[in-house]
Amino acid sequence: MVREALYEETGPVDLVDEVAVRALLQPHIRPTTFVSSENLSAALGADVVLAVEAFQHTGAFKFRAAMAAALHATGGHLLAASSGNFGAALALAAKKTGKRCTIVMPDRSVPSKIAAVRSHGAEVDLIDTRVIPRKTRIAELERTIAGAQVISAYDDAFVIAGNASLGFEILEADKPDAIIAGIGGGGLTSGLIKARNAVGAKSEVWAAEPAAGNDAARSLRAGVLSSNDEEPDTICDGARTLSLGQRNFAILRRGLAGVVEVPDAVVEQAMRLLFQHANVKAEPTGALGVGALLVDRARFAGKRVVCVVSGGNADPALYARIVSQPA
Amino acid sequence: MVREALYEETGPVDLVDEVAVRALLQPHIRPTTFVSSENLSAALGADVVLAVEAFQHTGAFKFRAAMAAALHATGGHLLAASSGNFGAALALAAKKTGKRCTIVMPDRSVPSKIAAVRSHGAEVDLIDTRVIPRKTRIAELERTIAGAQVISAYDDAFVIAGNASLGFEILEADKPDAIIAGIGGGGLTSGLIKARNAVGAKSEVWAAEPAAGNDAARSLRAGVLSSNDEEPDTICDGARTLSLGQRNFAILRRGLAGVVEVPDAVVEQAMRLLFQHANVKAEPTGALGVGALLVDRARFAGKRVVCVVSGGNADPALYARIVSQPA
Repeated sequence: MVREALYEETGPVDLVDEVAVRALLQPHIRPTTFVSSENLSAALGADVVLAVEAFQHTGAFKFRAAMAAALHATGGHLLAASSGNFGAALALAAKKTGKRCTIVMPDRSVPSKIAAVRSHGAEVDLIDTRVIPRKTRIAELERTIAGAQVISAYDDAFVIAGNASLGFEILEADKPDAIIAGIGGGGLTSGLIKARNAVGAKSEVWAAEPAAGNDAARSLRAGVLSSNDEEPDTICDGARTLSLGQRNFAILRRGLAGVVEVPDAVVEQAMRLLFQHANVKAEPTGALGVGALLVDRARFAGKRVVCVVSGGNADPALYARIVSQPA
Repeated sequence: MVREALYEETGPVDLVDEVAVRALLQPHIRPTTFVSSENLSAALGADVVLAVEAFQHTGAFKFRAAMAAALHATGGHLLAASSGNFGAALALAAKKTGKRCTIVMPDRSVPSKIAAVRSHGAEVDLIDTRVIPRKTRIAELERTIAGAQVISAYDDAFVIAGNASLGFEILEADKPDAIIAGIGGGGLTSGLIKARNAVGAKSEVWAAEPAAGNDAARSLRAGVLSSNDEEPDTICDGARTLSLGQRNFAILRRGLAGVVEVPDAVVEQAMRLLFQHANVKAEPTGALGVGALLVDRARFAGKRVVCVVSGGNADPALYARIVSQPA
């Protein structure tokens, strides 16, 4: 476990106006899709509304973050490491803003995810992560590519502001008792907290973390940023981060109500509930919020809860295996 | 093949004001969910917007029809034969309007569909359809139940007007070149035509029919209402009808642009495209419209098309088998 110095929230994150970013972003994004189901609420014992981001551009909320970052980027060539949704999102955002884009991906990435990044015109830089760490390769490319600007998928003020746009949409539709979203680097939950604070709502923001990589739960419990020693072994591929971002930790430790740790078996159960009762196709990471309701029923019993379904890009074979199992 | 006398559109269907029905219905239904995907449009060679009814109450557009019928029913006990979405929809509509409800279902119906009807408080009357036809049993119950009122899932003026509410929503969002929807009894396409005519739009309305039960295509080609000799053998369980309704045929023969016949293998392909490119969970009947775009590419090439995804209630095992196959 690595301990890092606390990042005090005094940097650029505080200089970004989430309301202004949202106004700039709005014409480029699709509004979230609110879905509710009597049967799902009954199964979860709470009054649940889903904020589904599976129909966002590139199939996940990440496009909000990527587009906000691209709109504010000064460099002409965006650079990021991603094996998942952020890579495709940044590739499309770069295309829409007339920038070049290179995504560093592990050479063992799912072929469909590599193809998704390429389909938006970005270059894919495949690396063997056992030979060269992602960060090292990103630093190399940053030095050699003219106008290169590295974008973090979560530890970035504009990324967080982009994600806040989802929070504004949720809070304009309703002021629920709680909003629950999955957590990896903490970009989404940070954005939700920023939006909640900006509109002065009382809604609690909760994070749902894969139990196999519970660094966020540990960090917030201890008050210091902790890391996993290696990438967590979870089906939630969007949350296989080593630690929260520093900006994110600074926001979360003040604004987050808590972290619910969700075992993979419960994530699968949540995916089945979403399939059967709500006709919603969620990827594993997208089902973490509903999983948290299953893990911590008593806490949310009878409350009005908005669960963010952060994305829908599930691998077909994995998805088929999960939904065909008995509930 | 049975030929029936033409039903002239002079009955109650013309006396129903779709605009007034829609106003009455609106507080009870969920608006349709518009989904678009660059990759789906690219795969289909047209500018496609999906009108997804999988998040409607009971998971399919049928609730629009059932609720419109229930709101206008004079009897206190609604009666229908259905092995699928209309049964659950009418059960919920009866509950919401304070009426009793009995649904006649084949005793070999999928247990989850029987459970869905019962979950909304309706009685399920299970019959062996090899011993007693549905119509005979419905007539028996109509005689014996006080205040019984039989509701057809498609051949009913209020059912058609209820479905027209979806057409109004589509045409308020856009005036596409074409609207494509699946066809069984013809209730949905009739409603879409009624709405199109009411607002004076030029959008063509197309029907997508399972090739294995192409009675609608035959009927409209010949100008006389034809029936299948037996329930068609197709995975599209929402379109296993013997023939169009008489009211529906009268509307369709004047207002429908045409019928595209879609083989089951193409329906499966359409379900995979919806899963992979749009994160939409469609039941087989709900994928007929996208299937029509695959069958008749040239006709819709480059056009702006709204495809209705009529419902999402797919059997988990069937769905898993279909989406896990290669595209």
